[in-house]
Amino acid sequence: MNENELTWLSLAETADLLRRGEISPVELTSAHLERIQALDEKLNSFITVTPEIAMSRARQTEQELRLGSTLAGEPLGLLHGIPIALKDLYETRGVRTTAGSRFFSDYVPETDAVAVEKLSSAGAILLGKTNMHEIALGLTTVNPHYGACKNPWALEHVPGGSSGGSGAALAAGLCLGSLGSDTGGSIRVPASLCGIVGLKPTYGRVSLRGVIPLSWNLDHAGPMARRVQDVAMLLQVIAGYDPDDAYSVDVPLVDYLAHIKDSVKDWRVGLMEDEYLDRTEPEVLEAVQEAAHVFSRIGAQVTPTAFSGAYPAALANGQMVISDAAAFHRQRLHDQPEDFGIDVRQRLQAGAELPIRDYILARRTQSLMRWQFENFFHNFDILLMPTTAIPAPPIQGPDAIEQARLLTRYTAPFNLTGLPAISLPCGFTSAGLPIGLQIVAPSWGEANLLRAAYAYEQATLWHTRRPIL
Amino acid sequence: MNENELTWLSLAETADLLRRGEISPVELTSAHLERIQALDEKLNSFITVTPEIAMSRARQTEQELRLGSTLAGEPLGLLHGIPIALKDLYETRGVRTTAGSRFFSDYVPETDAVAVEKLSSAGAILLGKTNMHEIALGLTTVNPHYGACKNPWALEHVPGGSSGGSGAALAAGLCLGSLGSDTGGSIRVPASLCGIVGLKPTYGRVSLRGVIPLSWNLDHAGPMARRVQDVAMLLQVIAGYDPDDAYSVDVPLVDYLAHIKDSVKDWRVGLMEDEYLDRTEPEVLEAVQEAAHVFSRIGAQVTPTAFSGAYPAALANGQMVISDAAAFHRQRLHDQPEDFGIDVRQRLQAGAELPIRDYILARRTQSLMRWQFENFFHNFDILLMPTTAIPAPPIQGPDAIEQARLLTRYTAPFNLTGLPAISLPCGFTSAGLPIGLQIVAPSWGEANLLRAAYAYEQATLWHTRRPIL
Repeated sequence: MNENELTWLSLAETADLLRRGEISPVELTSAHLERIQALDEKLNSFITVTPEIAMSRARQTEQELRLGSTLAGEPLGLLHGIPIALKDLYETRGVRTTAGSRFFSDYVPETDAVAVEKLSSAGAILLGKTNMHEIALGLTTVNPHYGACKNPWALEHVPGGSSGGSGAALAAGLCLGSLGSDTGGSIRVPASLCGIVGLKPTYGRVSLRGVIPLSWNLDHAGPMARRVQDVAMLLQVIAGYDPDDAYSVDVPLVDYLAHIKDSVKDWRVGLMEDEYLDRTEPEVLEAVQEAAHVFSRIGAQVTPTAFSGAYPAALANGQMVISDAAAFHRQRLHDQPEDFGIDVRQRLQAGAELPIRDYILARRTQSLMRWQFENFFHNFDILLMPTTAIPAPPIQGPDAIEQARLLTRYTAPFNLTGLPAISLPCGFTSAGLPIGLQIVAPSWGEANLLRAAYAYEQATLWHTRRPIL
Repeated sequence: MNENELTWLSLAETADLLRRGEISPVELTSAHLERIQALDEKLNSFITVTPEIAMSRARQTEQELRLGSTLAGEPLGLLHGIPIALKDLYETRGVRTTAGSRFFSDYVPETDAVAVEKLSSAGAILLGKTNMHEIALGLTTVNPHYGACKNPWALEHVPGGSSGGSGAALAAGLCLGSLGSDTGGSIRVPASLCGIVGLKPTYGRVSLRGVIPLSWNLDHAGPMARRVQDVAMLLQVIAGYDPDDAYSVDVPLVDYLAHIKDSVKDWRVGLMEDEYLDRTEPEVLEAVQEAAHVFSRIGAQVTPTAFSGAYPAALANGQMVISDAAAFHRQRLHDQPEDFGIDVRQRLQAGAELPIRDYILARRTQSLMRWQFENFFHNFDILLMPTTAIPAPPIQGPDAIEQARLLTRYTAPFNLTGLPAISLPCGFTSAGLPIGLQIVAPSWGEANLLRAAYAYEQATLWHTRRPIL
């Protein structure tokens, strides 16, 4: 297998080949590092690359795979020898963690985030830390301090954000898996715009300890990869109750891989129809409509369902995010506002000045939306809709605020409600930009979410396309 | 049995005598109405008395008790023929519901609140609507529109609030049970100050539909009575999931009476020690200390436990209450601020002007406190502390704001965290004012809470004292 092919395997296939000794972690890691070296100057998807750490870990996992156990005598992990990248707000011991911000440009954590520690225990190899929208407060990943990240499908377009570096790196074959974070769509938006798979789990499912916060009430940590099964494997490793995280919820962990290949025959699938769909790009709408037909073809019962709550929910989520972020960054915003980029500073200032009444009414909307969706899912197994109303906008976009609204219209309601949601490729525009399908499930329904996404993926070929770089 | 004795029975005893035909709902209701007529001019515990409704219901339940079933052929309810009173923010069909406010002085709801409907289905008889602090935002029940309510133990003292009318009416023998509402202590404070029993259930346990809101996030509906078992019977009737209430939680209902008389031997009982205890009245501290000894005597393992969170939790709760109330009453506050009493208007205005950052940090405190208590109750079954740091203050108090802080110091943390808590009599000051013991349990632990309170009550005689009126 040549180096190029090595970087295009799925995580699941790669793990299998590693286990069987058909490829080695060292050659795999080298291939990825070389590809980063060759391509990332134009993509700018990494803020920090860690070749020494990666190669040293690769040699260790190679030895362990040969041994059939870790050096400490533990069984091999699910990700043994798999090269991954982490959004640069996951704290990494000894590796700078910037949160895409000037304030954290020299921040070297002393411990790993809980999710990072879990990946490491499962045998994953850290290639580096990916670019992101500054402090995760934005959707373009045009980072004023570490450079604009480019969309591998069209370099003059954004990869989405805030986990844009992870989306771009995966789409370009620079890593096999990544962790992003999602407060209004920051995993799902870059997944949609880069043509990869991103999952925002149920609120409280993945520990947030060691993830630099944007909003204490809306942040979600989650996996990104090129294939549904890959995302399931990453979730399996990072999910679980963390008694030391105040926002973690003590719900038993399930096996996300056990039933992922089972059929979705007779599932009750809702296809969202909301009053704002007419502001969604026709090519996006057509692709989602076509995805619904695929679900019908594979035996599900698809029903169009009116849904009027997306706009107020996205608005409430947006208000909460900027105000919560302004509260978290209050000292920095007070002392050195000019060290924030213009767009982020403006959002933080708007958040600091939001009338308290609007925040309280947003909180009311949050409770009512949670309740509305709880009722909705009495009658449906999953809900389908576009991930983003538009494909990747140009970096030099005409109206950033309006674009941000269109990008989070469908994602933000599920931060507000905490419901699990996944984005996966469901087509391409005539200009060759990826289109994302969003699937939503009731709380703690990640296994069903992954099963539906896997069934759809197997019935289509969108995931097989690669960008020309 | 003479009329005076009829009004001093416990609710549980009365229900028993009614079932056995030894007393009649008509004589029981008459006795209560006559006592209200005789005493309430000086107590002012009722805003509205409903004698016609009460007597008509009494005659109906009398017939039903004789029949052994309702007129519709249903089994008799747990409260068949029991005269009760409702805090005047429970909506009652055809009966004015003022919320103690001028704005609602002519408000006659078309339907009953869910909890009222449940009481009615269980056979309770409505005597009237009790006085309260205006819109429930205060702790004195010195109501500028409907008159100051008096404490039956000392008429120049407040009964506490905001459910002060219910506390006073129960202490004076004017009803057998009542419903209050509690957003920072509004059930437990008047229970403490009036020497009766009041329970704030777990957040989400009792439907709030038809209860005029103070804070969407902190309001709790709950029962008040003179005895622990009476409170358990009322809770049994009003508790349960309400799918039409966005804040209701779908947790199975348990039988609160089945094990109420069981022992608490070997229970792990925490006795709170916090840094603010030195601002608590020495007589209150002594009584609570003595209550802890009672728990030791009946076989529990009592351990003093440091607890530093009461002050920040009470502060966070107070900030949320005034801001949430200002959001709910925003139109009234904007259009006719002078129609609010001075103290309530000032609180609402402070709430409208609270910096949004403080609200968000209060919300953060809420999450952290919930988590801290979740961990605390891994090691304890119940927690003991004073209900209020001081006994009933004089109506003409010197420093209302400072008193409000002392009254809610120990109650408000359990609105913020949503944990169930009960107040019951544990002594009297040398001036003859009641002292309240607060017991707290983990979420959904009402059955254990009631069992502990019952065990304590059976081991003491505080509940047998009556005020001289």
